[in-house]
Amino acid sequence: MRSGADKTQEDDRQAVKLWLRLYRPVSLIERELRSRFQREFGVSLSRFDALSALDRAPDGLLMGELSDRLLVTNGNVTGLISRMLADGLVTREAQPQDRRSFRVALTDEGRATFSRMAQAHAGWLTELLADLPPASATSLARHSEALLRSLQVETNG
Amino acid sequence: MRSGADKTQEDDRQAVKLWLRLYRPVSLIERELRSRFQREFGVSLSRFDALSALDRAPDGLLMGELSDRLLVTNGNVTGLISRMLADGLVTREAQPQDRRSFRVALTDEGRATFSRMAQAHAGWLTELLADLPPASATSLARHSEALLRSLQVETNG
Repeated sequence: MRSGADKTQEDDRQAVKLWLRLYRPVSLIERELRSRFQREFGVSLSRFDALSALDRAPDGLLMGELSDRLLVTNGNVTGLISRMLADGLVTREAQPQDRRSFRVALTDEGRATFSRMAQAHAGWLTELLADLPPASATSLARHSEALLRSLQVETNG
Repeated sequence: MRSGADKTQEDDRQAVKLWLRLYRPVSLIERELRSRFQREFGVSLSRFDALSALDRAPDGLLMGELSDRLLVTNGNVTGLISRMLADGLVTREAQPQDRRSFRVALTDEGRATFSRMAQAHAGWLTELLADLPPASATSLARHSEALLRSLQVETNG
């Protein structure tokens, strides 16, 4: 019979093991995408993620909404958007009802830029995932979704 | 019958879809760990990852080996190690046979610091993964390993 402390330690060990299993391949792919975006387009993965979030929002996004949607966090969203503004990829408009709040939207040039990058990104992923057995792909997709659902409770607020 | 171009587009779409499924929960967990390390210990996730890699290497690591092993990339490993040196967590010794190459090892204080952080990290992961159904955990572990193996070919070199 295991004591409570042993059980906790064993649970912790299992959680770390699962996390590292998940984290290693995902961070390898992320690193590869990051380096290809830099090499091929001279941009950060954060910029691609921001373009992608804005492309899915035809009316643009408030800065706070954009921060929430960015997959790559820890980026200074304000600085990121200022540089995209300088490059002509986005517009940034103060909101009439709240002058501290800005709405950001893609310009036509931003949309065209995103489209070129998204095509490259999809091709790279097809290449990177080419050797993954189809059964593993199916299973990873299904259970990653279960993981995301299970996290909603834990990471909200 | 689908044309070759349609098939390529469909493959690309599937690859992006799978990647986003995988990436979202992993980056949510990563963001949560990052913010907890900052809040509880005032350190970056990169520092924890470096301590962890060094803790598993009793004889220390060459700077290049450490770069290769860090899960969180994009960190300036030289800067990271300089700050850990200043904080007394590591030693850094020039190699007699190649004076441009440095070997980094944990100090006793570095090992004790890592041990405290690793315990917190494991507890956080147990909590974050608490609602994941056991069948999903088993399946994610198995197929993440398949993904890692499938990537060895693609990302080497």
